[in-house]
Amino acid sequence: MSLPSIGVGLIGCGTVGSGVVELLQDLRELYARRLGVELQLRRVLVRPQDVNYKTERVPAEALVTDPEAFFATEDMPVLVELGGGRGAISEFVRRGLAMGKHVVTANKALLAAEGPELFALAREHNASIGFEASCAGGIPLITALNFGLMANRIQAMYGILNGTCNYILTQMTAHGAQYGDALAEAQARGFAEADPTLDVGGGDTAHKLAIMASLAFGCQVSDKAIPCTGINTLDLSDVRFGAELGYEMKLLGLAERIEDDNAVALNLAVQPCFIHREEPLAQVSGSFNAISIFGDAVGQTMYVGRGAGKEPTASAVVSDILNIAAGWYPKAFSQLKLWPDQQAPARLLDPRENQARFYLRFNALDRPGVMAAIATALGDAGVSLSGIIQHESRAGEFVPLVMTTHEAKQGSLEDALNQIKQRDFIEGEPVVIRVIEMPPG
Amino acid sequence: MSLPSIGVGLIGCGTVGSGVVELLQDLRELYARRLGVELQLRRVLVRPQDVNYKTERVPAEALVTDPEAFFATEDMPVLVELGGGRGAISEFVRRGLAMGKHVVTANKALLAAEGPELFALAREHNASIGFEASCAGGIPLITALNFGLMANRIQAMYGILNGTCNYILTQMTAHGAQYGDALAEAQARGFAEADPTLDVGGGDTAHKLAIMASLAFGCQVSDKAIPCTGINTLDLSDVRFGAELGYEMKLLGLAERIEDDNAVALNLAVQPCFIHREEPLAQVSGSFNAISIFGDAVGQTMYVGRGAGKEPTASAVVSDILNIAAGWYPKAFSQLKLWPDQQAPARLLDPRENQARFYLRFNALDRPGVMAAIATALGDAGVSLSGIIQHESRAGEFVPLVMTTHEAKQGSLEDALNQIKQRDFIEGEPVVIRVIEMPPG
Repeated sequence: MSLPSIGVGLIGCGTVGSGVVELLQDLRELYARRLGVELQLRRVLVRPQDVNYKTERVPAEALVTDPEAFFATEDMPVLVELGGGRGAISEFVRRGLAMGKHVVTANKALLAAEGPELFALAREHNASIGFEASCAGGIPLITALNFGLMANRIQAMYGILNGTCNYILTQMTAHGAQYGDALAEAQARGFAEADPTLDVGGGDTAHKLAIMASLAFGCQVSDKAIPCTGINTLDLSDVRFGAELGYEMKLLGLAERIEDDNAVALNLAVQPCFIHREEPLAQVSGSFNAISIFGDAVGQTMYVGRGAGKEPTASAVVSDILNIAAGWYPKAFSQLKLWPDQQAPARLLDPRENQARFYLRFNALDRPGVMAAIATALGDAGVSLSGIIQHESRAGEFVPLVMTTHEAKQGSLEDALNQIKQRDFIEGEPVVIRVIEMPPG
Repeated sequence: MSLPSIGVGLIGCGTVGSGVVELLQDLRELYARRLGVELQLRRVLVRPQDVNYKTERVPAEALVTDPEAFFATEDMPVLVELGGGRGAISEFVRRGLAMGKHVVTANKALLAAEGPELFALAREHNASIGFEASCAGGIPLITALNFGLMANRIQAMYGILNGTCNYILTQMTAHGAQYGDALAEAQARGFAEADPTLDVGGGDTAHKLAIMASLAFGCQVSDKAIPCTGINTLDLSDVRFGAELGYEMKLLGLAERIEDDNAVALNLAVQPCFIHREEPLAQVSGSFNAISIFGDAVGQTMYVGRGAGKEPTASAVVSDILNIAAGWYPKAFSQLKLWPDQQAPARLLDPRENQARFYLRFNALDRPGVMAAIATALGDAGVSLSGIIQHESRAGEFVPLVMTTHEAKQGSLEDALNQIKQRDFIEGEPVVIRVIEMPPG
């Protein structure tokens, strides 16, 4: 007896796309057994210049380069978009949604910028959008957030969401590599793009954080609104001083729910942070991604896995296809109020109001009274110190002076630093790095 | 405008039950917003002797001690079973399912023993069973396995599934505590029951492993079929020798898919294992649970969180309630072929065929030729050594001799050990502990 079938169309067949084609072929029987339905890859749309070894396993009759031929294909209710970028791809996605097709995408840039519009368009046409692959690659994080943790009011999320940055930071931490050398090695090993800006500048992490925060906190978040500092200006000396204090440096996408006077605001940021080395998140090294999510009922849960790459990303894409083909995901999408088109814009915390612990490094003249002057200026601003490192040096030279603070208001700290850096015993800009105190959990 | 409502009935209101009652009350608005439907706790059934401070927040009109009154309640399509155990509880669950009620349960003992029957009964009456809370408490592991990783053929799972055991092992490892002292401390701190047998003997882990393996590998697994060794016979010296070799000891529930000559078999076991301390799973300490799942597409993913306790378990229970109330989970349950009632019994690997690395400790006489005799006997059986520890001692005494092997067939090793232990230079039973080599991922 032959099973009923569900047609799938694929736009883009690069690294991840070819992984999707391979999974659909290699695990065809397993999927048919789990679904009771056969998935059929009906059309794959690529640009003429992209017909290459990656499209080799696409059946000749399925491969097309003409969008009109692609969209004219009948019995193709599932559209998988792996072209990446916006512009023409956004048009394809909108065209598919308007035809009532369910869309599966790994496109974080598209969702971070146009998510609410696209979700609304899907809803209007009784379609749905699956996007597990857009955040943290193969880790089933969106599924966990939307369904597995649904009983929780999420309090905070801290995510290592970019494997390239984590690889570079691990090289700097474990092998004392300078940033430039670690980046060059990541590029040589294929972990970093020739133009690494989106990764090392934090933009990629901000895309993912915007998507995840909108789901976790039930609001609209644009990546443009997230203050973003990358790892590309990091100094190895800070990684080392941090290690001396017991901390690992990680580039985090962080989101914290701050409730005050009955108003709720989100603190969102992408920035290198120090995490105590005993925290589970600090121990995630190399090209892995990991996310710690704190819910008011569940406490801390953490998810670790490959955040990028052909097979892990294809795993998330094909899982979305299967969940759509099973019919349950479209039902959940239409029934639940979890997606950003159904939410109000996030109210963001003024970063100056952010209460946190900080690591500070000054380039300070080693002469009597300097330490006291700095500590006094900080103390007057309500910033109290929890640790200090000054290595032995020759008096009269500028030397690194490292301090960590107890919890303090970021605005007060900034004001104090603005005063301190004008003094003649300080050279250059003080370095400020957030120290993460994980919530209890 | 008032929302439509869905009635919930709760059987059992102990620690977890009271957590469920609190969540349903405290986050009522959040749930209504996410669902578009109001959850109403209509009846709570407890034994007369269990009306106490834990039932304080149950509205008086909802609390009943008569099962007939409970089951006669109208508009109560969701039944939450938190009574625990089997017997009468199994009857209640079957009665609810036969009435077409969806059942949410945290009862691993019930599911490990009667799962296939109960799932079939649910299916017969267009009902479903949610059991996220039955394995790994608040970690949304079942959701990840069934939906988030659906595109994967699962290759292996290694789970720290019992927080009591992990707490005790952490005390032994980090503080050199003897097993008995660590257990007493766990009991004093509320992490272990007065009768800890089910935890420390590995039975609780076997229940969870049976449920998880049946889902991951698409088969029926009974906990009774799983070879089970607890931590209650562990010797601190093995924890210490393991640490010397770079390993952490963890009680694992493990499941490995072995494909050979086109036949597939599962290797299932609950046993203390050594994991290299650089593996993420080795670093999960204290009362946390963690599971590493290897899929052929996704590679390694790991899930960490609280595996027990009032709030984490209630998080999983209430998430199930919400996913049932949203209608998507019943649809998935009826549509997909993931649950053990739809599967054939697992074909289990003969443990003698298991290929693995092992840690061995002999109590051996320190005299010339002993090491050579042991190494020769092992070598003749095809077992080659990868490491040896023998601390300096006085000749002529029985001393611990520790060895680790390369990958070897368990049956061959057992045969060799049976020979070796009959020699006059060996005292007592050799200790054998599996060393886990994680798959690539």
